[in-house]
Order: sequence, then structure tokens, then C-alpha cells
Amino acid sequence: MKVIDSTAKKDGFRMPGEFEKHRGCYIIWPERPDNWRLGGKPAQKVFVDVATAISKFEPVTVGASSEQYANARHMLPEQVRVVEIDNDDSWVRDSGPTFVVNDEGDVRGIDWTFNAWGGLEDGLYFPWDKDDQVAQKICELEMSDRYRLPDFVLEGGSIHVDGEGTLITTEECLLSEGRNPQLSREQIEQVLKEYLNLEKVIWLKRGIYLDETNGHVDNIVNYVRPGVVALAWTDDVNDPQYEISKECYDILSNSTDAKGRKLEVHKIHVPKPILITKAESEGVDAVDGTLPREEGDRLAASYINYYTANGGVVFPLFDDPRDEEARQKLAELYPDREIIGVPAREILLGGGNIHCITQQVPLG
Amino acid sequence: MKVIDSTAKKDGFRMPGEFEKHRGCYIIWPERPDNWRLGGKPAQKVFVDVATAISKFEPVTVGASSEQYANARHMLPEQVRVVEIDNDDSWVRDSGPTFVVNDEGDVRGIDWTFNAWGGLEDGLYFPWDKDDQVAQKICELEMSDRYRLPDFVLEGGSIHVDGEGTLITTEECLLSEGRNPQLSREQIEQVLKEYLNLEKVIWLKRGIYLDETNGHVDNIVNYVRPGVVALAWTDDVNDPQYEISKECYDILSNSTDAKGRKLEVHKIHVPKPILITKAESEGVDAVDGTLPREEGDRLAASYINYYTANGGVVFPLFDDPRDEEARQKLAELYPDREIIGVPAREILLGGGNIHCITQQVPLG
Repeated sequence: MKVIDSTAKKDGFRMPGEFEKHRGCYIIWPERPDNWRLGGKPAQKVFVDVATAISKFEPVTVGASSEQYANARHMLPEQVRVVEIDNDDSWVRDSGPTFVVNDEGDVRGIDWTFNAWGGLEDGLYFPWDKDDQVAQKICELEMSDRYRLPDFVLEGGSIHVDGEGTLITTEECLLSEGRNPQLSREQIEQVLKEYLNLEKVIWLKRGIYLDETNGHVDNIVNYVRPGVVALAWTDDVNDPQYEISKECYDILSNSTDAKGRKLEVHKIHVPKPILITKAESEGVDAVDGTLPREEGDRLAASYINYYTANGGVVFPLFDDPRDEEARQKLAELYPDREIIGVPAREILLGGGNIHCITQQVPLG
Repeated sequence: MKVIDSTAKKDGFRMPGEFEKHRGCYIIWPERPDNWRLGGKPAQKVFVDVATAISKFEPVTVGASSEQYANARHMLPEQVRVVEIDNDDSWVRDSGPTFVVNDEGDVRGIDWTFNAWGGLEDGLYFPWDKDDQVAQKICELEMSDRYRLPDFVLEGGSIHVDGEGTLITTEECLLSEGRNPQLSREQIEQVLKEYLNLEKVIWLKRGIYLDETNGHVDNIVNYVRPGVVALAWTDDVNDPQYEISKECYDILSNSTDAKGRKLEVHKIHVPKPILITKAESEGVDAVDGTLPREEGDRLAASYINYYTANGGVVFPLFDDPRDEEARQKLAELYPDREIIGVPAREILLGGGNIHCITQQVPLG
């Protein structure tokens, strides 16, 4: 498949909203023992649950390393396709391609540079060369040509779009020292506009409290449909999350999108703080250079980290009283989709959630 | 994708002839330094030539190990898709699935057991576990359900079919001690008939002289179309090949196929004997348990080891006066196909040829 030396905007391609129709979904199988406890076994079960839930709505492909291929194939249900994709970890939202489409139904990938959320500055593991090849490999599997940006670091989880010219992101992430410190905010915005075909970028300040990705937007805000967003919220003014969510709320409420619409903002409460237990911490290999998982550390739990499938929404459950409230809220926001909750503590322990471990391929 | 506990015959599937329409073709990238000289570099160039030639006619997917992925992607032309398929070596004709189709256009794979051409009896390398997974992996990539035969060893190169109920094979291979010694000839024939939907098996005695696969049929006979076969030939009565080819000729000339037709047999002369040079031998890592490549050894060169593509035939050239004769003969046999020759000594040095390194997926 080709590398195209142009931009999506020049070629008449745009990034569709996640709520638009998909051809399918990719997931990468978890295994690294310095991030997933007990050799990845508990997380693998939850990945199976997520893949199974999404496969109710659209074709799911799971990429596994050669070593884990047979195990993944045995654990996953037969309707899920399993292919080999070697990787450094399983965050395909961030390592995978961002797909763009044109009016003729063609699909192309954007192959951003991936540097493990901050490279040598504050990245979460080293090396990350296999992850940086994941986008290319998924494009090949999908027979999609791609735009490759060898000098621009971006993760898919740091952006959300409405498919109609608007993108939402956070300064905490996109202006971080570990991504593109040589570029100004305006230059970064220009790259996004050219490669995703946008007219407007809405900049939030920060993501979820203690989010190790430097505040990816996909853990705090999601686009329900053009003009409508969901926001992670807390009413507890003593929680550091309050100030962050309030700041997002104020920015979003006072923003207009590329079409001049005011945004409708729906709050979904975060669960009560979730801390890593001693047993959970001890299940993870301690390796220099990989972010440690220490007992008592607070995890960046948020219901906003859900996946929007064809006719469905798959969202994380935290065994918290807010679980049911989140389900009801999502059911109201997505009246035409089936809402499926998956107990997701094991994904959260690895540093993300359901949206982070999925990557949609739009129908084109 | 599913494993189906039934047989092709019961389910109304049949193995089409290679000359029928294809969806595409798979190739596995060569790399193992104890079989391919100079770390596989010269062979890789030839594999690129073969993939490029076939891609003129149908979509080509090359499977490469994770380690060789980037190199394969760089060397192959952009119209060829590259995916990860871990492997023990690159003989996808033998490790890959045999595809069957039904009248509704469904395609399923037969996933025979692979044991490196003879297992612990006289196999060519150890271990072969990755190769035995290749068929499953290609089925997953193609989203094809499959029949898995955990107790029946077969390589795709040991059979040729006319798609109308007839299969040709060799006793040397199928009755070898290293495949299915627990089964009688009749029992082996029964398995083939059930899984490929056949009425008739034509048994040749032996394959090409010194063929290390225990005489795979695909190096000595190919099906041009139902009722018509091409046979590797020599007029040199002092060449051990003569007696073998004569024996095949007599059997084929006196055989009728499943439809009751007498076979039309076309002779294509083998090149003059090709021997491994000192330099070629020295370029291969010597490893206990892998068949050695020794100076002066005669290679099993035959033009019959060609690939039949949609509208094309890709055949091996040996820098021999017979090259041009083979091209003319193939042009006569395939008047509607473009005939492309590829210098293939480097594949031959690895123990096979163009047919051995390819596996078609029928259109269904």
C-alpha cells in the first residue's frame, strides 16, 4: 500500500466522527507483564469481553503478537478475527492509524508518529518502535493508503472530532514537552487542520486528574454527535477533578463549533476514586523505564472512555454506584444504540480504558 | 473464524483447479539463514520479482515475520500488501491452507497438519510449529472458516486437482514414512476424497529426481485445465530423471480422470543439471537438524513449478537454453494468459520453486 505525500484536506478526505458508520474495529491483545498484572491474564479476559461486546455491532479484528496468537485465538469468540500484529502494548487508539474518508467511499490512514506518550521526556515505556509500526500494519491489513507524519507526534486518544470540521483536544497533551515541543500551538493546529480536514480546534486545558497520557481528551470528553458532547464530571469540590471538569465545562459551554453551533454539554459523573491495591501492584513486573503501578495510586477512572460502535455503545463499569447512572445517561444520549457495560477495572489498571484499546475503521 | 467439524464433500465444497479464478495470492517472505544464503538477501530479491509478476494479475499478500516486516515492506512494490505471519520458512504452498469453494461463492480452508516434509522421520528442519499455524492465520486473514485435520499430514505441493473430481499425487510423498504411516493408501485416498471432494486419485510413483520433499507432484506435473497436464521431461536416457518422467508419462497417458476423459500430456524439458556452487553452499548457515546445502549437490530444477494466476503464468528461468522452449510451450498451453519468466535459481537453492512459494485463494 502507498504512502501519500499530500494531506487529507488537499485530497478531499476528512476524519469522520466515531458515531458515523464503521467498517470494523481493531483491538491489540495485552501481554506485557510490566504493565498488565499476572502476565496479562486478567486483562485478557476483559479484552475478550470488550471484543465480544463490540462484535455484536461490527466486525472486530484483534492483533496479537506471534507469541500470544494461539492463546488469543483460543480465548476470543470465533466471530472475532485474530491476526498477528507485533506491538509494545495494546493501546491501538494511540498507536493505530486515524482513518479519513472521502465522498467516494475511499478510506486512508493517518500514520502519526508514536512515542509512548512523551518519548524520552516522559514516555511510559521504552522502546516503542513496534507500536510506531502498528498504524502502518493496520493500513496494510485494510488495504488503505496512508499519510505518514515522521515529524509529528500524536495519539488518537488525544483528539475527538465531530466529522463536520471541529476537533476537541487538550493543551496538557498536545502542548506537552514530550510530543512536538518544536512546534507552536498554531503550528500544531495547522497540522491537525490539514491532515484531518478541520476548520476549528477547541482547546481544553487539562484531561482527567492523574491521567498518565498527559490528559488525553478521550478520557474526559466524547462527541455524542455534532453539537453534542459528554463530559466527565464530579460535584465534589474537594476532588482535584472538580476544578478540571469545571474548566472544561466552561470552555465547552462557551465554544461554538466549525458550523457556528453552540455545544450542548452533558455531564457524566466519574466513580469514586479507585486506588491500586497491594495485590494488584504486586502482580506487575517492576522494570526500570516503565511507569510503575504502585499500591495506593489513584487511577484515572471515567465513564467517558467508551467506544461508539454501529448501533451500540460499550462503556466501562467500575463496580461503583455511578455505573448505573452512567448507563442511564448514555441511554438517553444514544437513544438508537444498545448500551453495554463491561467491568473494566483490569483495563484501568493498565492505564486506560475501553476507548483507548479500540480503533474504528470508518465505512468510507 | 470457526473450525468446522465436517468435510468439504459433506458440505458441498470442492477444491478448484489453480487455473480457475483467484481472489488473490499469498507468499511468505524468506529469511532463515540456514536455508537461504547470505541471510536471505538474494532470495528476497527474487521473491519480490515473483510477487511483482503475480501482482500484475491478482492481489498479492506477503506475510513476513515481525523482524522482517519493515524490510519486506521496503523491498516490495506498493501494490503488494504486507502482513505479519510468523513462520519457520517460506513454503506457503505447503504450510498454507488448501482452499475449497461452494456454488454460493463461500471459501473455506483445509488446515492440514504440517511437519516439515517428514517430521522426525526425514523432515527438513525442526521445529515446525510456526509453519503449522500458517494455514490458520491465512484463513483468519481471509475471514474463512476452516477444516482442521490434526492427525493427517499433507502439503499443498503434493497434490494437483482439475477442480472436477480428479487429483494427481505421488506415492513417493503420500506414502512416505514421515507423513501418515499409520494409514493405508486407501485410507489416505479416502481422506483426500472427503476433504477435497474428489472421485478419482491418480497415483504417480515418484517426483523429480532428488526432490527433497519426497517427490511433490507440483515439481513434476501441473494441471493446465481439466483433461490436460504438463509433465517435466528429459530425453537423456542416462539422466536418472528419464526413468521417473517416463514412468509418469506412462501412468498419465493410460489414466482417465473422474469424468472419464483420457489425459492429454504435454512434455516440458527440464534444464540441464544445476549444481550448488561452493560460494552458494558457503552462504548458508550450517545448523544441525536442517538439511545441508552442499557444494556439488544437484538441485531439483523443473519448469513445471510455475504459478497459474488470473490471466497469467509465472514460471522459473534457470539461465538455460531450455528457458525459451519452456516459455513457448507454456504460451501454447495457455493461449489466453500472459507468460512471465522470473530468474529463480535463488528459490531453487532453497529447495523449491515458484509454485512452492505461492498459495492462491480462489474467488469462490
